[in-house]
Amino acid sequence: MQINGKPYHTIWLNEADSSVVQVIDQRKLPFVFEILDLKTPEDCFCAIRDMAVRGAPLIGVTAAYGMYLALLNFRGSSLEEYLDEKATYLKTARPTAVNLAFAVDEMLKFMKLNIGHPRLKEISLKKATELKVREIEFSEKIGEFGLKLIEDMYERKQAPVNILTHCNAGWLACIDWGTATAPVYKAHHKGIPVHVWADETRPRNQGARLTAFELGEEGVPHTVIADNTGGHLMQHNMVDLVIVGSDRTTVTGDVANKIGTYLKALAAKDNGVPFYVALPSSTFDWQLKNGVLEIPIEERDPDEVTLIEGWNGESIQPVRLTPEKSRAANFGFDVTPARLVTGLITERGICRANEESILQLFPEGNKQ
Amino acid sequence: MQINGKPYHTIWLNEADSSVVQVIDQRKLPFVFEILDLKTPEDCFCAIRDMAVRGAPLIGVTAAYGMYLALLNFRGSSLEEYLDEKATYLKTARPTAVNLAFAVDEMLKFMKLNIGHPRLKEISLKKATELKVREIEFSEKIGEFGLKLIEDMYERKQAPVNILTHCNAGWLACIDWGTATAPVYKAHHKGIPVHVWADETRPRNQGARLTAFELGEEGVPHTVIADNTGGHLMQHNMVDLVIVGSDRTTVTGDVANKIGTYLKALAAKDNGVPFYVALPSSTFDWQLKNGVLEIPIEERDPDEVTLIEGWNGESIQPVRLTPEKSRAANFGFDVTPARLVTGLITERGICRANEESILQLFPEGNKQ
Repeated sequence: MQINGKPYHTIWLNEADSSVVQVIDQRKLPFVFEILDLKTPEDCFCAIRDMAVRGAPLIGVTAAYGMYLALLNFRGSSLEEYLDEKATYLKTARPTAVNLAFAVDEMLKFMKLNIGHPRLKEISLKKATELKVREIEFSEKIGEFGLKLIEDMYERKQAPVNILTHCNAGWLACIDWGTATAPVYKAHHKGIPVHVWADETRPRNQGARLTAFELGEEGVPHTVIADNTGGHLMQHNMVDLVIVGSDRTTVTGDVANKIGTYLKALAAKDNGVPFYVALPSSTFDWQLKNGVLEIPIEERDPDEVTLIEGWNGESIQPVRLTPEKSRAANFGFDVTPARLVTGLITERGICRANEESILQLFPEGNKQ
Repeated sequence: MQINGKPYHTIWLNEADSSVVQVIDQRKLPFVFEILDLKTPEDCFCAIRDMAVRGAPLIGVTAAYGMYLALLNFRGSSLEEYLDEKATYLKTARPTAVNLAFAVDEMLKFMKLNIGHPRLKEISLKKATELKVREIEFSEKIGEFGLKLIEDMYERKQAPVNILTHCNAGWLACIDWGTATAPVYKAHHKGIPVHVWADETRPRNQGARLTAFELGEEGVPHTVIADNTGGHLMQHNMVDLVIVGSDRTTVTGDVANKIGTYLKALAAKDNGVPFYVALPSSTFDWQLKNGVLEIPIEERDPDEVTLIEGWNGESIQPVRLTPEKSRAANFGFDVTPARLVTGLITERGICRANEESILQLFPEGNKQ
């Protein structure tokens, strides 16, 4: 997708120097656009830990490149031990992201199998690039399946399709296209008029900062709203479709996503608005049957509630929002029960949010 | 209620000088505690317009004192014309607040009837004070009726009662006690352990700034949460009771309150959590039957969404939250349909949110 009229991925190999991986520093968006050079696995670790890169798919690919960079920087006697050590290290950068461990393990396995290969560096780079390309393909597939929903809505309505989304399940969280945003970009590119209501998504404001930024740079009409607003909009027919992402999805179709998603799903149900979740199948947890009871919800630093970052005209500055004496609580996610979900948009197609429909599309889930 | 250990009302006559009315400057809370002197109707107008005072009951009483201050500052030939002019002027300070016009008209009528009275200033001050005292009595009654709900919950639970509230329907919006907070303060004073989840209430953050401040100063345990959080808390039995305020209530029991209230009501319904609305009967609109269709929702300045104010360590500073290019929308209120409301806590008692129950408690509504 585009930034300032130029197409970008969220991560890429420096064209002039294949020992440097580059990423967009997402901590500074939308106020400052800066590119970070990653030259070592330590650089990748810090970029993930400090959230210069975020979003499960992007975290995974960054760590995969981290293994490649580890190889380039190998000093020592046992390459195998060294790679094991770097893999373990990279996996601790963000403990909760499943994709992180998955991508690192896939790289590690491949590299260990090929130790002694005369072009190990080259083929390891190729492997990391493959992981990246796979993520792009998954996003694009989700985009194409979701596009159909927007097209149908447009055909019925013959007026711009209003889509509400929460948090950032956009291309910035992936490599390109995004998950929840992929159908929107596909529709926009096809000339279907769309308009996105972007929930600001307190406390970290990923909607106000990242979703609004990426939609704006791609030229998609959008409006930032306080998280409180979606219900009112739905009551007044100002939302045609809700599309959100998922951090973890049970085999029964319950969806853990950014805190506040559940409230929008309730409003969608109450007003007959279709509520879709766009997700790569990597978010399925085949073991879980009851999301509300079984998915542990991360409690994060209360400072994310009591302080907020914004642009003061010169720099990004945190300001305090609450009385010094007041406590705050900060739950990162909530679980939307499957009964509120109209359908899941996956890389293999759209299915209903129930075990039968999910396992029909993903029969491998039966074996897990 | 208390601030820094000292009991306050939100508005009072200066003890040493009865030509000065004093209010707490709420624009600066919780960061700075400052008292404003109001000496003229113009001072009152600005305090209301610029939101140094806010909340329908407080706005009304401030304007009533504004009429008294007008009298003190009378220069000219026709007192009657002068009072008419000042009344019209004061009523335009905030066009939407019903209490404002009501209080000004009550003062104007009284003063015009008593023109020529040797102690007109004295009896006008007494009238303004009466309006103030009536507001306190209403809040206290709401507190006493609501207390019963908290007591019952505590009896059943034998553990601290968790109450979720949205926005500030606290004593700062009234003169004392508040509406939604009045039962909480009554319970706290009675030694019943309570804990309040205070929604921060984007975009203006009245929960994070004012509700948290007043609860903290009164010593009530509380936790500030992002507006997205209530649903998750209710799913996990962490909310026993929701109590919110109302800006306008239909005779059928639909409630217009701060944007986001509807989402909490949906979550309460979905999780079997009692959802109560505390309101003085002055918020009833006897003409309206369908809140969602009939209550006009104010659209406010988008800057309230794109910018936020906080404490930078030295002063209150606004910072920008969104990309320069992104639009924002800012709806001030939403309507919670009566079917989601467990009951209305009024100064005459608790009733169900339906026409029959409301008119039984307020038979005068039949005549309007």
